[in-house]
Amino acid sequence: MRTSIATVSLSGSLTEKLTAASRAGFDGVEIFENDLLASPLTPEEVRARCADLGLTVYLYQPLRDVEALPEAEFVPALRRARHKFELMGRLGADTVLVCSSVSPHALDDDALAADQLSRLADLARGHGIRVAYEALAWGRHISTYDHAWRVVESAGHPALGVCLDSFHILSRGGTPEDLEGISAIPGEKIFFLQLADAPLLAMDVLQWSRHYRCFPGQGGFDVAGLLRRVLAAGYTGPLSLEVFNDVFRQSEAGPTAVDARRSLLTLQEEAGLPAPPAPAPPTGIAFAELLTPDAAPVSAVLGALGFARTARHRGKPVDLWERGTARILVNTGPAERRDGTRLAAVGLESPDPAGAARRAEALLAPVLPRRRAPGDAPLEAVAAPDGTEVFFCATGRPGLPDWRADFEDTGEEAETGGAPRIDHLSLTQPWHQFDEAALFHRGVLGLSPQESVDVADPYGLLRSRAVTTDDGAVRIVLTVGAAPTDDTAHAQHIALATDDVVAAARAHRAAGGTLLAIPANYYDDLAARYEFPEGELETYRELGILYDRDAQGEFRHCYTHTVGRVFFELVQRDGGHRGYGAANAPVRLAAQHAARGFTGG
Amino acid sequence: MRTSIATVSLSGSLTEKLTAASRAGFDGVEIFENDLLASPLTPEEVRARCADLGLTVYLYQPLRDVEALPEAEFVPALRRARHKFELMGRLGADTVLVCSSVSPHALDDDALAADQLSRLADLARGHGIRVAYEALAWGRHISTYDHAWRVVESAGHPALGVCLDSFHILSRGGTPEDLEGISAIPGEKIFFLQLADAPLLAMDVLQWSRHYRCFPGQGGFDVAGLLRRVLAAGYTGPLSLEVFNDVFRQSEAGPTAVDARRSLLTLQEEAGLPAPPAPAPPTGIAFAELLTPDAAPVSAVLGALGFARTARHRGKPVDLWERGTARILVNTGPAERRDGTRLAAVGLESPDPAGAARRAEALLAPVLPRRRAPGDAPLEAVAAPDGTEVFFCATGRPGLPDWRADFEDTGEEAETGGAPRIDHLSLTQPWHQFDEAALFHRGVLGLSPQESVDVADPYGLLRSRAVTTDDGAVRIVLTVGAAPTDDTAHAQHIALATDDVVAAARAHRAAGGTLLAIPANYYDDLAARYEFPEGELETYRELGILYDRDAQGEFRHCYTHTVGRVFFELVQRDGGHRGYGAANAPVRLAAQHAARGFTGG
Repeated sequence: MRTSIATVSLSGSLTEKLTAASRAGFDGVEIFENDLLASPLTPEEVRARCADLGLTVYLYQPLRDVEALPEAEFVPALRRARHKFELMGRLGADTVLVCSSVSPHALDDDALAADQLSRLADLARGHGIRVAYEALAWGRHISTYDHAWRVVESAGHPALGVCLDSFHILSRGGTPEDLEGISAIPGEKIFFLQLADAPLLAMDVLQWSRHYRCFPGQGGFDVAGLLRRVLAAGYTGPLSLEVFNDVFRQSEAGPTAVDARRSLLTLQEEAGLPAPPAPAPPTGIAFAELLTPDAAPVSAVLGALGFARTARHRGKPVDLWERGTARILVNTGPAERRDGTRLAAVGLESPDPAGAARRAEALLAPVLPRRRAPGDAPLEAVAAPDGTEVFFCATGRPGLPDWRADFEDTGEEAETGGAPRIDHLSLTQPWHQFDEAALFHRGVLGLSPQESVDVADPYGLLRSRAVTTDDGAVRIVLTVGAAPTDDTAHAQHIALATDDVVAAARAHRAAGGTLLAIPANYYDDLAARYEFPEGELETYRELGILYDRDAQGEFRHCYTHTVGRVFFELVQRDGGHRGYGAANAPVRLAAQHAARGFTGG
Repeated sequence: MRTSIATVSLSGSLTEKLTAASRAGFDGVEIFENDLLASPLTPEEVRARCADLGLTVYLYQPLRDVEALPEAEFVPALRRARHKFELMGRLGADTVLVCSSVSPHALDDDALAADQLSRLADLARGHGIRVAYEALAWGRHISTYDHAWRVVESAGHPALGVCLDSFHILSRGGTPEDLEGISAIPGEKIFFLQLADAPLLAMDVLQWSRHYRCFPGQGGFDVAGLLRRVLAAGYTGPLSLEVFNDVFRQSEAGPTAVDARRSLLTLQEEAGLPAPPAPAPPTGIAFAELLTPDAAPVSAVLGALGFARTARHRGKPVDLWERGTARILVNTGPAERRDGTRLAAVGLESPDPAGAARRAEALLAPVLPRRRAPGDAPLEAVAAPDGTEVFFCATGRPGLPDWRADFEDTGEEAETGGAPRIDHLSLTQPWHQFDEAALFHRGVLGLSPQESVDVADPYGLLRSRAVTTDDGAVRIVLTVGAAPTDDTAHAQHIALATDDVVAAARAHRAAGGTLLAIPANYYDDLAARYEFPEGELETYRELGILYDRDAQGEFRHCYTHTVGRVFFELVQRDGGHRGYGAANAPVRLAAQHAARGFTGG
């Protein structure tokens, strides 16, 4: 189907918006009136620019407060509309969006509304224009799609139809009964379809709509379910995104347009429309790769964690460290950003690496150039929104290229005791790309986003959201700072699973490792909240082990010191606990600030 | 009365919070449990630190989910409480806050709640502790202050009273009837009073409380009215601020604590408690002062606007430019921040400059050092939160020091035609200090904050709020960017009133000045919306004049080009129009971006 985006969804000048929409692969746009007013381009120049960019102007919007008015107010409204229809002729737009009246002078009179909309449609038809009438969720008298349809139906004018908007519909209720009326609308009378999602917030619907809309798949609405119903009704027009969002307004138009189109591709797939190659969710973490200007400090931590340097890349300065199935690459090769040690790449074990890469590419993930030596395994990789390189791997599987084969064994043996594997990775996201990141990991990688959690850092509230496979074999925690400036201020980490965190912590210490010191007050509080076997709490206190419990089970964890931007966590999950220690994160964050000397005591 | 602040209201480590509270002049604090848990200080060390800083620990908080529980759950809750009471003994805190249960296991049984609270109070009394019971607005069964009081009253325990919290009370309704129950509570049973304000948002009360609370006077609640009622009931305990706010969490603790205490001082004044010297609102703008490394470009603009360089400071490189009663100082002296031309100081005409300065100082405004030469007039000045220097002036008034006397006439004469005066000044605020700025201008300067307005810039939503005198003689527009990084990205401006903006614009052009070009599309839209006399719109189009209309009257305005961070606006208000052209601001901002070459077309 044809795809479109409203210019209001993107930042910048009209030219920048159009260029970004075209580059992301949209077929057309809705031109938002304010974007045109602020542009130095004439309507004819906008039309020509769109044509050059391969964009159709599917809609001009909005015309407000034109129906159900006292006649004395309808006349100037019609005059205004005539001006706009002439403008649309210059612009090459053939459909106008009319929003239901919010004017305090609007009358609660459906017959009057139908009559005036007919007169408006007469005028429009004279200009070759169709009127798409939309119920705003906060419309004064007409605020539901089925009410709008009743008015349009009774007007019975060929140039008058409805515009359906997923936000206005779903913000007022999304039960099957709420949506039943859609099938009553003949497909050819649905003149336009606008799509937006939103987080499920209990707030004034106007504020919610103007500031918090997001792209489908980033919020809590069942936009795909709505789309299926609209398609079933026979709608064949463009699928158009219309998102008002305070963060997107500040973001670069280019990446936002890509994020938008990825959202629409994923939505089409969910709604049963022709789709990109099917997802092939990963089955595990093949490796995590650290990029560092100096291997020594991080190697020391890995050694103390029981990792062995088992192999070295044949052609690059990359060491492979292993313990059990946990594999960590330490790369001292040239990096564009040599800002200390950081988690730069993740290898995901994939049932079909080439298929996963094809899907990623179809979903507009930037495919990374393969800079490999002759003989290296052909690794497929894309870049995540935060810049992390994501490799699709087949480790030790016959018939598939194996990254491990590029490495030469050192002869050192990895320990296997204590069930070590990577429990989760934690990656700090750029502030402007948090919603995009969740959508990327869901759509491109096939992971399931979990609930978003607030975490109190001493210097601002962080948000954190895990994306996981259902069996927990892959868990990535996406974290975002309190403000755009915090993009790289917060640490990343690698959490290693163990079946005995006390033993693992003691072994780390015995091997010369350090553990993050946790304040005694924390343990006094644990003693108040839970009863522990004799001596257990003293052990936790001594080692800096944190404790959490939920209905499923228990979670014990502790932290190493930080090297560059990276630290390690030792994690013991029991009884199917599914959390990440969010309740303990404020204490951990404060302790890390204190360890960096940020605080006075 | 004694003043206090909850540690959760300030950012940083517990030590930073306590230090900031003490420096801002609070008598005591509420210790928020999480702040203690995250602190490496022992409770005894916290107690000693507080004593050193002159702070009393008025409250320890919160104890959650202790009442109306099945006995099997009450026993561990009581065990938890015992631990906390022992901790409070070490901390030196004698009052604990107990929030009404949100536990899904809590029973809707007031008698059980009263009984268990009595048993809790028995335990507390054994430790010399009082229990202050507070109804959370989202409590499971007890969510109103009068319900909480009925339970406390029926318990009839000497160590059990209520804690009143202005947010929890006013978020559920603030009518006189809603608040009547307060007078039914004996003052000595009100164990604690927590004060917070909040903007009037229609949203889930828990989210509203956790993220959007602000200091009294910064939101929409009548906190002073509530305080008067609590005082009338006989409450004599501390006035304690408890604010959960996402922005304050990211801000430096020091300035936030000052903002908090200023809020409390202003609140005490409004509630009829002993107060700082009475406000002396300004009667006009004496001058605006531009700081610039190079006087030539801004002098050229002033000259073309009809200003004359009428005088020069006797001891400093400062020129006085005048036109009518509009006075602009151009200062080329040494500046700490030589980042191009900026609006650095504002002179406010004051009926009592010395009194205004005393009030400002009492309200914790930083008093600026007087660096004047012998013989200079003793000008009183303070710094606003954005760093702007605010001078309290008496221009040409016998018996009062006159800043004008420090200037020597050049002999040039100022024009007087066209009613020129400063209509308003627009100052960009640091992102973290927008609420503080509004409170500063209201409390310290005696201006009235107007409604906050959203303005769409092409690269993010701005917020704008005017602070004015009732007669409009002083109007200052405070603007804030979309993100913390935008603090200084946006321009400041000086708007000059004229009784004929067309003549003023023509004169400016004729004198060599340039006016900001406004896109033709804007005028096509004006033509659609309004009917103008023949030729008028063409004049606006030619000159770049923008137009707005409201129920009161009309507003016409145009803009010069920008010098450094500063531009000028010519403004014609008719019929008592009270706006600032917010509807036109997106077009103006886009045009300014285009003029700076930010956009592609």
